[in-house]
Amino acid sequence: MEHEVIARCRALAECTEEPGFTTRTFLSPPMREVHALLTRWMEQAGMRVHVDPAGNLRGVYDAARPDAPRLYLGSHLDTVPHAGAFDGILGVVMGVALVEQLRGGRLSFHIEIVGFSEEEGVRFGIPFIGSRAFAGGPVRDTRVDHAIGAFGLDPTRMAEARADSAALGYLEFHIEQGPVLDSLGLPLAIVDSIVGQSRLELRFSGAANHAGTTPMHLRRDALAAAAEWITVVEREARAGGDLVATVGRIEAKPGAGNVIASHVNATLDVRHAEDAERRGAVTRLLSCAGQIGARRGIDVCWEERLDQAAVRMDPDLSQFLQRAVAPHPVHRMASGAGHDAMIVAGRMPAAMLFLRTPGGVSHHPEESVLPEDVGAALEAGSRFLALLEAQYG
Amino acid sequence: MEHEVIARCRALAECTEEPGFTTRTFLSPPMREVHALLTRWMEQAGMRVHVDPAGNLRGVYDAARPDAPRLYLGSHLDTVPHAGAFDGILGVVMGVALVEQLRGGRLSFHIEIVGFSEEEGVRFGIPFIGSRAFAGGPVRDTRVDHAIGAFGLDPTRMAEARADSAALGYLEFHIEQGPVLDSLGLPLAIVDSIVGQSRLELRFSGAANHAGTTPMHLRRDALAAAAEWITVVEREARAGGDLVATVGRIEAKPGAGNVIASHVNATLDVRHAEDAERRGAVTRLLSCAGQIGARRGIDVCWEERLDQAAVRMDPDLSQFLQRAVAPHPVHRMASGAGHDAMIVAGRMPAAMLFLRTPGGVSHHPEESVLPEDVGAALEAGSRFLALLEAQYG
Repeated sequence: MEHEVIARCRALAECTEEPGFTTRTFLSPPMREVHALLTRWMEQAGMRVHVDPAGNLRGVYDAARPDAPRLYLGSHLDTVPHAGAFDGILGVVMGVALVEQLRGGRLSFHIEIVGFSEEEGVRFGIPFIGSRAFAGGPVRDTRVDHAIGAFGLDPTRMAEARADSAALGYLEFHIEQGPVLDSLGLPLAIVDSIVGQSRLELRFSGAANHAGTTPMHLRRDALAAAAEWITVVEREARAGGDLVATVGRIEAKPGAGNVIASHVNATLDVRHAEDAERRGAVTRLLSCAGQIGARRGIDVCWEERLDQAAVRMDPDLSQFLQRAVAPHPVHRMASGAGHDAMIVAGRMPAAMLFLRTPGGVSHHPEESVLPEDVGAALEAGSRFLALLEAQYG
Repeated sequence: MEHEVIARCRALAECTEEPGFTTRTFLSPPMREVHALLTRWMEQAGMRVHVDPAGNLRGVYDAARPDAPRLYLGSHLDTVPHAGAFDGILGVVMGVALVEQLRGGRLSFHIEIVGFSEEEGVRFGIPFIGSRAFAGGPVRDTRVDHAIGAFGLDPTRMAEARADSAALGYLEFHIEQGPVLDSLGLPLAIVDSIVGQSRLELRFSGAANHAGTTPMHLRRDALAAAAEWITVVEREARAGGDLVATVGRIEAKPGAGNVIASHVNATLDVRHAEDAERRGAVTRLLSCAGQIGARRGIDVCWEERLDQAAVRMDPDLSQFLQRAVAPHPVHRMASGAGHDAMIVAGRMPAAMLFLRTPGGVSHHPEESVLPEDVGAALEAGSRFLALLEAQYG
């Protein structure tokens, strides 16, 4: 079955806006092909399928009794430009495969597979269009509404996309998109939380001057100040447990080899599963930047662009998941990237299972999964359903 | 007289390619106006004037005897874009003023004022066009030849621009273009040497990765590596006496705030009056870059773009200059920037006198000189002529 899952993901990767690559944005034409393929597989597995007004593909596998509670399994169907074949869609294909493995047997809860229409934010710069509608806080944007209408859907009926808030919960299978499991040699991880995130822009302002005629002690070199600070950012993050902090963008002006830099703009990205840890780190890093500047006669100012709180996965649902994974080594970790589960967690218990990403390579055509890891995830998924059945059946 | 010198420099700053700014490149139309004004002042002071085939303006004030030796005084007439009023041209106007102050009295040596046509390298990216022709190693470039022809001169007669190699020497007055004299509260400095210069480009190559999903210890962050190295560059230069080292340009790719940088390109500019010191520093800094890279899994490579040796000013001529300055505090220093004297030193003894640059501001419309400093330089120049007269008269 694991080979079938991978083959289906690879087949879906052929549905693209750009031949030779996998690029599939919100409700773009190839999304219809994705819906068609998944609908066929879902119906073969005994599911009723429809597309909701947010463009989410939804397949329901009925429980033995109509008034049974509901479990959602899902992830997103859209991709970044020049994507791999597994980010997002693997979680949908895994859900279909788990239902197939029931071979028509009915459980005491409905299973609904959700293929979210949009998570990456590529088409309109707005991420999570699908899961926000599902969680009951849909995006209100005329471009989005227009795209929904152009796809043949009715944006005025958006409330119909909303999930059942009395659901048992939501489980998302997703590739890790990072190197942790690969470096540990482990196939799976249970996600404890999705980290909170701070994004800032800093500006270091000194004085441009001639690189030859200005002695070192008379310089106000904005780049030297920024470099000192970047080393502090790295040191602070290395000392801070699961803290990650990144300066990914830097610009130095005037930008000539023989002129001392007067101005440097640099970004700061800080993430941690504990909001207090993250905000404390940001405060320390800004304080350090100020001290470095004060010592050097460099003015330092900043703007906060994002302060997004961490989202905990549901402890009870994660406990089921941990028991389901248990024959394999159990690793728990925070997700450094955002996922649909982060949005869905606002409406119902949510849990996530990560699959190892070889080399940590993602958002790239060479993104891959190992068949044995998909097999392990399918086993864990089946056990998860069995454990829920034992609990609620 | 100092006010007259400043007023003349300000009048010449009006000769520009760009109204509202001073921008005057090699043999551009406003150079004719500069030649006209200077020619008038030179002739009023009793000099014979011509423009040589390299576009240098040359005014000769004859000695008492035709077979007398010759002293050259000069600097350049071209400017950077949006220049100040003193860089270069002050040295020519000072020379004219010193001749004027002789009030027709004849010395035992000829004085020739040279206004070099080109030093900054703006028009063709080729610096020192005027002084190279003067020193006997003219630039051979069809664009330069064409510009010379278009100005009404004959580039095939370039040899006529060559200086008398039996001359007593060359003296250049120039603004410091740096903050040293201003910070010391001194008006003048004798230039010991023009520093040698190394320019390199370094490339740090790591691995791009997600800023959220990649733990600190699994990163190969090219920008973190470059930042560590930039702090080493600064520390090494601060510890190295008169060494200056600058990273003025940096580019990080892919350059997104939430992506770890895979590649960083950075420049390195290193200058010192002693070539061995400079080359030793470059070797140490490259070795450090390699070590930082090795520790971090970052590949570091570089290309040397320039390795220009230091040029000593003539000790004997500088000794005369020191005695001439002596009523003022004598400060000796290296020039961190290149000057015509560096080129001329290849043909004859050369010496330079720096004038304080308030705030170190140069290559900028706010570039200035203090009248009292110009007065001190005029006094020193007069004494210099008197000392030479006593020696050779």
